[in-house]
Amino acid sequence: MKIKVINPNTFVLMTEGIAESARRAARPETEIITVNPQKGPISIECFYDGHLAFVGVIEEVKKSLKEEEIDAYILACYGDPGLEALRELTDKPVIGIAEASMFTACFLAPKFSIITVIPRVIVPLEQLVKKYGIYERLASIRSTRLSVVEFASDLEAGKEALAVEGKLAVEQDGAEALLLGCSGMAGFDEELEEKLGVPVIDGVTAALKIAEGLVDLKKKTSKINTYAKPDQKLIEGFDPIFNIE
Amino acid sequence: MKIKVINPNTFVLMTEGIAESARRAARPETEIITVNPQKGPISIECFYDGHLAFVGVIEEVKKSLKEEEIDAYILACYGDPGLEALRELTDKPVIGIAEASMFTACFLAPKFSIITVIPRVIVPLEQLVKKYGIYERLASIRSTRLSVVEFASDLEAGKEALAVEGKLAVEQDGAEALLLGCSGMAGFDEELEEKLGVPVIDGVTAALKIAEGLVDLKKKTSKINTYAKPDQKLIEGFDPIFNIE
Amino acid sequence: MKIKVINPNTFVLMTEGIAESARRAARPETEIITVNPQKGPISIECFYDGHLAFVGVIEEVKKSLKEEEIDAYILACYGDPGLEALRELTDKPVIGIAEASMFTACFLAPKFSIITVIPRVIVPLEQLVKKYGIYERLASIRSTRLSVVEFASDLEAGKEALAVEGKLAVEQDGAEALLLGCSGMAGFDEELEEKLGVPVIDGVTAALKIAEGLVDLKKKTSKINTYAKPDQKLIEGFDPIFNIE
Amino acid sequence: MKIKVINPNTFVLMTEGIAESARRAARPETEIITVNPQKGPISIECFYDGHLAFVGVIEEVKKSLKEEEIDAYILACYGDPGLEALRELTDKPVIGIAEASMFTACFLAPKFSIITVIPRVIVPLEQLVKKYGIYERLASIRSTRLSVVEFASDLEAGKEALAVEGKLAVEQDGAEALLLGCSGMAGFDEELEEKLGVPVIDGVTAALKIAEGLVDLKKKTSKINTYAKPDQKLIEGFDPIFNIE
Amino acid sequence: MKIKVINPNTFVLMTEGIAESARRAARPETEIITVNPQKGPISIECFYDGHLAFVGVIEEVKKSLKEEEIDAYILACYGDPGLEALRELTDKPVIGIAEASMFTACFLAPKFSIITVIPRVIVPLEQLVKKYGIYERLASIRSTRLSVVEFASDLEAGKEALAVEGKLAVEQDGAEALLLGCSGMAGFDEELEEKLGVPVIDGVTAALKIAEGLVDLKKKTSKINTYAKPDQKLIEGFDPIFNIE
Amino acid sequence: MKIKVINPNTFVLMTEGIAESARRAARPETEIITVNPQKGPISIECFYDGHLAFVGVIEEVKKSLKEEEIDAYILACYGDPGLEALRELTDKPVIGIAEASMFTACFLAPKFSIITVIPRVIVPLEQLVKKYGIYERLASIRSTRLSVVEFASDLEAGKEALAVEGKLAVEQDGAEALLLGCSGMAGFDEELEEKLGVPVIDGVTAALKIAEGLVDLKKKTSKINTYAKPDQKLIEGFDPIFNIE
Repeated sequence: MKIKVINPNTFVLMTEGIAESARRAARPETEIITVNPQKGPISIECFYDGHLAFVGVIEEVKKSLKEEEIDAYILACYGDPGLEALRELTDKPVIGIAEASMFTACFLAPKFSIITVIPRVIVPLEQLVKKYGIYERLASIRSTRLSVVEFASDLEAGKEALAVEGKLAVEQDGAEALLLGCSGMAGFDEELEEKLGVPVIDGVTAALKIAEGLVDLKKKTSKINTYAKPDQKLIEGFDPIFNIE
Repeated sequence: MKIKVINPNTFVLMTEGIAESARRAARPETEIITVNPQKGPISIECFYDGHLAFVGVIEEVKKSLKEEEIDAYILACYGDPGLEALRELTDKPVIGIAEASMFTACFLAPKFSIITVIPRVIVPLEQLVKKYGIYERLASIRSTRLSVVEFASDLEAGKEALAVEGKLAVEQDGAEALLLGCSGMAGFDEELEEKLGVPVIDGVTAALKIAEGLVDLKKKTSKINTYAKPDQKLIEGFDPIFNIE
Repeated sequence: MKIKVINPNTFVLMTEGIAESARRAARPETEIITVNPQKGPISIECFYDGHLAFVGVIEEVKKSLKEEEIDAYILACYGDPGLEALRELTDKPVIGIAEASMFTACFLAPKFSIITVIPRVIVPLEQLVKKYGIYERLASIRSTRLSVVEFASDLEAGKEALAVEGKLAVEQDGAEALLLGCSGMAGFDEELEEKLGVPVIDGVTAALKIAEGLVDLKKKTSKINTYAKPDQKLIEGFDPIFNIE
Repeated sequence: MKIKVINPNTFVLMTEGIAESARRAARPETEIITVNPQKGPISIECFYDGHLAFVGVIEEVKKSLKEEEIDAYILACYGDPGLEALRELTDKPVIGIAEASMFTACFLAPKFSIITVIPRVIVPLEQLVKKYGIYERLASIRSTRLSVVEFASDLEAGKEALAVEGKLAVEQDGAEALLLGCSGMAGFDEELEEKLGVPVIDGVTAALKIAEGLVDLKKKTSKINTYAKPDQKLIEGFDPIFNIE
Repeated sequence: MKIKVINPNTFVLMTEGIAESARRAARPETEIITVNPQKGPISIECFYDGHLAFVGVIEEVKKSLKEEEIDAYILACYGDPGLEALRELTDKPVIGIAEASMFTACFLAPKFSIITVIPRVIVPLEQLVKKYGIYERLASIRSTRLSVVEFASDLEAGKEALAVEGKLAVEQDGAEALLLGCSGMAGFDEELEEKLGVPVIDGVTAALKIAEGLVDLKKKTSKINTYAKPDQKLIEGFDPIFNIE
Repeated sequence: MKIKVINPNTFVLMTEGIAESARRAARPETEIITVNPQKGPISIECFYDGHLAFVGVIEEVKKSLKEEEIDAYILACYGDPGLEALRELTDKPVIGIAEASMFTACFLAPKFSIITVIPRVIVPLEQLVKKYGIYERLASIRSTRLSVVEFASDLEAGKEALAVEGKLAVEQDGAEALLLGCSGMAGFDEELEEKLGVPVIDGVTAALKIAEGLVDLKKKTSKINTYAKPDQKLIEGFDPIFNIE
């Protein structure tokens, strides 16, 4: 099967990290294609960034739908920006790494915490957990106070900050599993798991396993109402690739 | 004071209806400027539409921030697409017509229902009410089964459908106020109010009054964390207007 | 338009503070009439106080309905005691300063905290936030440990205590806006706003703006069910003014 | 032990029905004293009625605290108007018949419905269930569309209406126990139970049993914070009995 | 009346403590029969223990239903393991000490905390409070970090730990009543109440009072659906006492 | 990898159906071992059945832990009876088919309904959905009114009833995915999917995919607190296999 992993920001180094993590976790027969859009911000750390990034994501997906036979898509930004819109565009499963990490954790622990980047994403993540309807299982959301770029430029400092906040989440907030709240942390789960003694979920690999499973079961996105294909309508000022046919 | 009302779709007829409604409700000394983006879909009826539309909205707001002295912005699509991102861009109040209609209704009735366009927007609206944290006051969301364009092309049929669903909301769902769930319905509140005997809230005029009040009180959007100005960062493939300075 | 502001306690000094605050915030053409009942407790700091105070409030409103043409009423005690009963008595908008402050904050920040007087009002305020259905937006309720009278007798100490608790609300509880949890704090918002760097909402002025807006829009309280006029019935031992005609 | 049952309205016939029901359910050694205030409305069917009624209730309780040795108080109006204020006045248990019926039902069935009088009390009852924090166990609230007085003037019609709505609650709403939502229905539980085959809870007798049990256990109302005795303060225009000593 | 109290573990010393506590609280005419199963774990401190213990509980109840005339059953483990299954087996009231303590506290205080044994039972207790639908009234669950056996072997240390955590619950978490979260703490309520100045609820005596009250009122478990008698069916490998007749 | 699927009832025919379904969905290299306990009820349709069944389940798992190298366990009864206790016994992933179906549906649709057997399991299933913290995504639970055995004895009637209730769930309740609420329905998903046009989730195959994914990722159950290994303690009257070593 073919799974396309889309890093919605334009930070190529992060796309490579995501790709490596995904490939390592995939079954041998799963083909992983990782891309990032040509346009958009280098990192996604606020609502504004997310909206800009998503235009490029749509473009990538629309092109992909025309040119490739993809079995499932993974949206690899911990914030799942625009996930529902992608579900409208195709009946192939589209998995967000945030939702995948949350639901995966629920099979391993009664409560999870998310450890993320800068403080301003805490409220948006809390809204995301509520939108997914799984807020009851959330122990806390903690910030390392490091930006995506700071994180990428000093991995060791990043891992250290993750360990510090993760420990507090376990000891003070009642977390029994931890979620890596940024795709730039892809691949750090094992090391942290060993250090803290609780399951640590990397959304990229969690999403990959969910995607493989859904493809195996031939399950598709429900098109009965909310995620039905968008209606054809006049769209001005956009490349024709954005039209609905 | 100057209030800018942005219709995020490219349907000029609807922009005019919104403008008329806003102007009628504004105080004499309030200057209303109504625009719609040059690019984007003609109506917003799914997540996909909303994301495309929002790019043009950002462009309008960024230009406006450069060129005008605006006291408050109103986002005139009942779905408030991208509202938080606009709040990041400016400390001037930015009001969504959906949120304005909901909180306004709360001063007049214990429970409200939203009457909206096609069925596929029901789940997104329910998510919106939950995001605003006011779900406890929601009696129901009902669909007229008419699209935005169908609505605009036969106003009488639209009003009739609104009356039918509004009546059901009051009699069966426990609604004691009704919210017009599309900016294409701007101006229909009085007629419906008379027919059904309950307050009917038009989000455009509700938002206008909230905006005027906040400007009077000199209140600004909180920039302490979630809605702080986006960080400057590399944004590729977008017009320079999209950069953060 | 004429707006009547009712301070439900008998503390004349507080009534004057409320009046001043309201007048400063009102539009030039809005006439503000501020009163307090002749009977009842000098401050409202528990359920018992609230119930006693409300009898005098009803009397004032019943008299007003007979004698004046008022466009909207404001109940100026942060606890909104008896608000629903007033809504039953008239179809003119009746706005509580607590509800006004909460919903107003929602346009400016994702989460708010209330800073209030003595600890025993925390649970009642929490119940109020839940009754209004907006608990999801509440970051915390904090007490200054000062009574209403202590507050009035040493304003500087009061402001200092507000600043201390407000800072903790922002830094520890995730508040991005603050609400002044007592009408005795009317007028302190600007100073506190400057000190803490987040919007601070004074319920009196917030209610005033909501009231002006609703009067502009000609919106009235829903009389369809819950807030319908009370049925005429035998009421013993009360002044005839309390009868329903 | 001595238990005082207070019917907060001035409808003497209803007071007698309550007294009879309470006496029949009490243990032989429990002394039941039933009163209603001298002043206030003949029935409580809206917020306004409740507020007026409560003044007389306070007067009765304040006098009782001076003159009698009472072990527990029962507030016999299904709406528990002013219950918290009474808890402030004494450390003797004060039980509301609404809360008693709800928590009692929870020992017998997973979900309950309340069958009440006129439709306008549905929202207030829903708010009450939420305030008590037991909303998750509520199947529905149904109205017989009969007023308190209509009920009292034709008991058979009342019982019939109760049976009709109770049956619908069981068959359509998932109720497995029913609560009599008005103290004017005191004593109807057995007949209805037989007819419908589910437990039917009469709040008066439920409250009585809770009160007896708490007195046996020597449990008192918590005075640590929320229900502490009201502070002494200037109260104008009220009989001295209303002062706090 | 005859009430059977079942300690589901096999710790005879604890059964005796429970019996003593129950007898002291019962009315003179109430006959208390206390038992523990012959098989099962000596204490219940995790899901596994609870499931093993419950087999013996069923056996005791099935035998009792054959051989005795019991008016109500009390399940005396703070976790109410298997409570619903017992309700299926008989229409006599079956009361869990956890649920009894929670609902009893609600008549005395706005919020309660549970003080329990080891940390691993916190999540299960939280789930229990949510299942009972009364989570809104929970201030916190605190652990003494002592096991059931440690508690029994050094009562003074146990009481000390209870006092420490109880104090924190009141001062930091907003509890206004405390619940003893283990039947091994039966009888400690008075001493703790005196020390901390808030109501302390012992689930055993709370359940006893609820049971006596329900028997007085002749109320039975609802058999209409969820708690109906189990269907007869083939059960292999169990003593015939486990069959449904 | 080796996955053990445990049907907790003693209905061998159902075990075979489950086995077939699981094998068909497994990857070629996954070894599926399906068992049912030797003791217990032939079907699980109430709390009582579930408790009896679980003793045999524990026995199977304890033996398995001694004798086999299993990578993950699946508990194949839609009610997940005793799931947490199994998680205490091993750090290998243990997946319930109910939880697996619910979380899997969340990747495909905004809201799901469960179609189940007899009405008495509706409340227990609702409690389960709430325990898993995913109640916000539940559209409804519907009963076919067929028992497990009736279902097994007339598959066509069962499928027909599923289709009828599934259709109502989609059309009236807002479900956009359906969950097969009994392991006796294993394998019916494809046919129903085709008929109704929405994703239909079979918990057995959903759990299998989750299990395979977790084993791939080497994720284990969190042992930090709630699911830690049970403490060793005296267990009387049980086969030694039940002891904790």
